[in-house]
Amino acid sequence: MGVEGYRPPVVIDGCQYANWDREVFEQMRAGGVSCVNATIVYWENTRETLTRIAEWKRHFADNADLIVHAKSAADVHQAIADGRTAVTFALQHCSPIEEEIDLVEILHDLGVRYMQLSYNNQSVLATGWMEAEDPGITRFGREVIAEMNRLGMVIDMSHSAERSTLEAIEISTRPIAVTHANPITWRDTKRNKSDAVMKALGESGGMLGFSLYPHHLAGGSDCTLPAFCQMVAETAELMGVDRIGIGSDLVQKQPDSVVDWMRSGKWTKQTNASLTWPAPTSWFAGNHDLPGIAQGLLDTGFAKSDVDKIMGGNWLRFMESAFEPAG
Amino acid sequence: MGVEGYRPPVVIDGCQYANWDREVFEQMRAGGVSCVNATIVYWENTRETLTRIAEWKRHFADNADLIVHAKSAADVHQAIADGRTAVTFALQHCSPIEEEIDLVEILHDLGVRYMQLSYNNQSVLATGWMEAEDPGITRFGREVIAEMNRLGMVIDMSHSAERSTLEAIEISTRPIAVTHANPITWRDTKRNKSDAVMKALGESGGMLGFSLYPHHLAGGSDCTLPAFCQMVAETAELMGVDRIGIGSDLVQKQPDSVVDWMRSGKWTKQTNASLTWPAPTSWFAGNHDLPGIAQGLLDTGFAKSDVDKIMGGNWLRFMESAFEPAG
Repeated sequence: MGVEGYRPPVVIDGCQYANWDREVFEQMRAGGVSCVNATIVYWENTRETLTRIAEWKRHFADNADLIVHAKSAADVHQAIADGRTAVTFALQHCSPIEEEIDLVEILHDLGVRYMQLSYNNQSVLATGWMEAEDPGITRFGREVIAEMNRLGMVIDMSHSAERSTLEAIEISTRPIAVTHANPITWRDTKRNKSDAVMKALGESGGMLGFSLYPHHLAGGSDCTLPAFCQMVAETAELMGVDRIGIGSDLVQKQPDSVVDWMRSGKWTKQTNASLTWPAPTSWFAGNHDLPGIAQGLLDTGFAKSDVDKIMGGNWLRFMESAFEPAG
Repeated sequence: MGVEGYRPPVVIDGCQYANWDREVFEQMRAGGVSCVNATIVYWENTRETLTRIAEWKRHFADNADLIVHAKSAADVHQAIADGRTAVTFALQHCSPIEEEIDLVEILHDLGVRYMQLSYNNQSVLATGWMEAEDPGITRFGREVIAEMNRLGMVIDMSHSAERSTLEAIEISTRPIAVTHANPITWRDTKRNKSDAVMKALGESGGMLGFSLYPHHLAGGSDCTLPAFCQMVAETAELMGVDRIGIGSDLVQKQPDSVVDWMRSGKWTKQTNASLTWPAPTSWFAGNHDLPGIAQGLLDTGFAKSDVDKIMGGNWLRFMESAFEPAG
């Protein structure tokens, strides 16, 4: 394994969700991946989230030669020095805090470093992109943003709707992230982000991770690497080259039933049993393909120093401040 | 105990929340109360709700001469025949279903017959009256309304905001309830209901329970019985005398700390420790005072047959259909 291509000193992926096993962790090493921000839950409640964290503890114990849990940027630096891949914990929805603000700190203690204020639906904090209406950040949402700001947990608005996202950027006293999305002008789905959101995100010191999930790509599974890299170049113009990174939304080894889980959770009796995973692009099917993207960015005309930023340097610099408790 | 006044054949209170004990149950009998719809939780999650239900099982076992759990209108009729007070279970918020639609049926199996789609804040189903914005019923909200319609669990919008309430009336295929509120034109708080809501509620076959909580009364704790009864008469004109009842929101024996619990739940670190219960009116401090209200309605000019409807007949007729599973 290990695709040809430029190998940046730091490679960080802002969003992945695999049926994690040793082979996946080996692919991380083959790809020279410094850090993966791992989705640990979608719709799980508190108790279920603890089980997901416990499963990760087993992964770390069983694969200590390959991966290590990171709670700080210093942990990521250490992982790089040790030749291991750091794994940060992310929640795609706020269900793990179960309407209890003190659980934000409990989950932070356990190593959670990113939380989406909503997944696709209206949450108690913010609105998801699939709702018809978006009233913005709720009363509880304002409290949770303040608490995440205090602790150094990153607010992620990847699946949130437009107004909620803009308000989160405005209300948060610290930069936020959209860990996995692309410009809506490139692939027209409300799941992607408007120029207004991306500009506000960039101006506030936030980060956008570019998604490689086919439903977020122009042309879907047929999207080419040059087309993807051209989109990155245009977004760099809009947001600044310091505000962008990779957030591949890579899914590996998950059965098709997980698509239904992501879509339907526990909130509807209408299942989508016919849903399947989209085929990956020919040039990105796993962590081992990340060097190929670095090479594609070079080929598109990015300076090597900018490729280094986009492939991981920006995420690492972001983590260096974002994971620190409020001063 | 037992205040002077007309004693209707059926007396039903659509909302109470006491620190329940035998003395309170004795007051129910003294007041000739046929049925009380008891709030069993405000912000509790699933597991905590099971404990609240278990506590009620102890109340029923220890006070079997006074009270009995009612899951159907037939149970209420039987309680009346037996000289006991029937108790129905109500949730003031949807937190007990924890974003899991199948838990609606689980809670229904355990005897829950009313659920508010939101308390004061934005919920995953609908919007509470204290939010600045009200986007209406959410995607999940539509699913839960259909499930409650199927099972025969009553949708209660007492604490919900205007648009959400109107949409719930529209989306629900069965009549809904506002178990405890008054007209906003009488006491100007967004917690009370507009003419538009009350008309839509009445026209759809729903029920409004008049609140006796001082914050919902014109003049607060100084509100007079004739003023209250005059408001009832005017609302009867608006909604129809078949669509109104009592939903006193009576709170007994709760410490002031419970006001903070109702207001802050677990969703904010800002406590309201200085909040206290408002003093009750001179004419309504407990179940034993309900006959006095019946007398007040007679004195205001209501026919005895209409007083019987308002004091309990309407709620009983509503339950006869609303608690049945969908045909």
